[in-house]
Amino acid sequence: MKFASLKNGTPDGQLVLVSRDGSCVAAVPDLAGNLLEAIQRWDAVAPALQQCYDALNAGNLQGTTAFQAAACAAPLPRSPQWLDASAFLNHGHLMEQAFNTPPIPDFDTIPVMYQGASDDFLGPEDDVPLPSEDDGIDFEGEFGVVVGEVPMSATAAQALACVRLVVQINDWSLRALGPREMKTGFGFLQAKPSTAFAPVAVTPDELGDAWRDGRVHMPLHVQWNGEQFGQPNGGEMNFSFGALLAHAARSRKLTAGSILGSGTVSNVSRAAGSACIAERRVIEKIDLGEIRTGFMRFGDRVRMQARFDDEREGPFGVIEQRVVQPS
Amino acid sequence: MKFASLKNGTPDGQLVLVSRDGSCVAAVPDLAGNLLEAIQRWDAVAPALQQCYDALNAGNLQGTTAFQAAACAAPLPRSPQWLDASAFLNHGHLMEQAFNTPPIPDFDTIPVMYQGASDDFLGPEDDVPLPSEDDGIDFEGEFGVVVGEVPMSATAAQALACVRLVVQINDWSLRALGPREMKTGFGFLQAKPSTAFAPVAVTPDELGDAWRDGRVHMPLHVQWNGEQFGQPNGGEMNFSFGALLAHAARSRKLTAGSILGSGTVSNVSRAAGSACIAERRVIEKIDLGEIRTGFMRFGDRVRMQARFDDEREGPFGVIEQRVVQPS
Repeated sequence: MKFASLKNGTPDGQLVLVSRDGSCVAAVPDLAGNLLEAIQRWDAVAPALQQCYDALNAGNLQGTTAFQAAACAAPLPRSPQWLDASAFLNHGHLMEQAFNTPPIPDFDTIPVMYQGASDDFLGPEDDVPLPSEDDGIDFEGEFGVVVGEVPMSATAAQALACVRLVVQINDWSLRALGPREMKTGFGFLQAKPSTAFAPVAVTPDELGDAWRDGRVHMPLHVQWNGEQFGQPNGGEMNFSFGALLAHAARSRKLTAGSILGSGTVSNVSRAAGSACIAERRVIEKIDLGEIRTGFMRFGDRVRMQARFDDEREGPFGVIEQRVVQPS
Repeated sequence: MKFASLKNGTPDGQLVLVSRDGSCVAAVPDLAGNLLEAIQRWDAVAPALQQCYDALNAGNLQGTTAFQAAACAAPLPRSPQWLDASAFLNHGHLMEQAFNTPPIPDFDTIPVMYQGASDDFLGPEDDVPLPSEDDGIDFEGEFGVVVGEVPMSATAAQALACVRLVVQINDWSLRALGPREMKTGFGFLQAKPSTAFAPVAVTPDELGDAWRDGRVHMPLHVQWNGEQFGQPNGGEMNFSFGALLAHAARSRKLTAGSILGSGTVSNVSRAAGSACIAERRVIEKIDLGEIRTGFMRFGDRVRMQARFDDEREGPFGVIEQRVVQPS
């Protein structure tokens, strides 16, 4: 199934089913008013949602309208928890190599992740107001999962079975603020403003073979101001989403609707490019001896879209955002 | 005004007004079903809530029942954000001195804080299931504030004006897990299980002169298994709540109902004792040359209550919790 949330002035938006071909949507108010409610009542509503989805795809559902990304909020405009890992070790290793910083302890064997703000997510085409160009404004293309309730101390297999939806994420980052916050040991706070999401959240079966081993095996195409920037593949993730969720749930439960992100998608092959500017900059430093690329300016745009392959677009829709000065 | 939230099977509980003397409560369903809703609609409902509160205190409100802490959830059983600072520098300085760790950069001038899970708070008398005694189970007595919406880049004065309620907090901590998580730079995650709250959240005016300079000038009395453990005063907080909120809102808005904590209350005077075991342990290491106190065991109890002075109890009620093995 494919879901989106239309902006309707409420904090959670209005749930709609999105047709498999992405052309049209239909609300299902009798089943769930918003996606968070559907996730919270998943076992009770999923069968009926599936019936409606099948009818939508067969052209047999009443009240459909055209899909418009601009009308969409994030699939979950707010969620109980937002946890973001750094599960592509290549990215971390590049950072360490470029800046000659001490290695993160156990980085290759124990996932690292931070807790981010989950009360104010951005929609796929929302402008991104940020306080200053001096903060090192950067995008981060990621994949993520939305879970049903994960009990405390769940195993990786148990946690993976709690995955309800897969999402595509732009984890906005302020690079000038990150290193100081890392040095405090308390983690990112100012360095991580509101996170944005592609419009469509999908059940794992929509990904077919691209969802296996608890990973999203799809390239994430990133363009900055219209130029191709990278297309790293999510399959290189060093920890599965099951392992990441189990780490997160070690001493707490994750309530239904919690979201866990992969961290910026990153591939060992330089040909894949990067899903964030910071990584391109460290590659320039390592390969060329100097950083040549600056961070984003007000008015800059970023576009992100996962694809199955060159011919087939992914199911998440497109993130297309512009950085702006606060009004 | 004084508020509590009765457990009623819903995620946000049922809002009740608590009489100033703490003896009785009354629901106000016509004004707000739960406290989060009241905070979100504060300007619209606060005058009518004040009228009901005045009537409750005058004995003129219908439908009152006796106040029972055990019936209470946290005042906000879940909230949009939970941010916890370390605003008593004495605590951090003791930690550094005892373990000879490198100083946190700018620790005395820029607040440090982590983002915690805000989807699953514990009530004042809720048992605390934790996975292992080997994790270094510890309490942390704190004060905190609940805010209306704080806009991005608010000043300290603007942010302080957004404070709606003051709360008393037990920020459960797993000390064996904290140092490794700090070294990753990504901050606390496993080291910070669900946080607990005293039953009553109060508007700042209920504190009288004890609320000034954006601080709670009250001793927080902490007892561990019935023995007095410490009574440090919140007035020694090195950053005001306004400064802490402004730091948190530097690159994000805080939506209405967000909670910011002070970090463990800590005083320079050794006579004040401590509000967490970790601090007593480092004082033992510094003053006695060896750590003598262990962390909590399953079955252990902690009690926390702020007081105006020796004669007068504070308005927040009592946190009285027991650590247990998960069922």
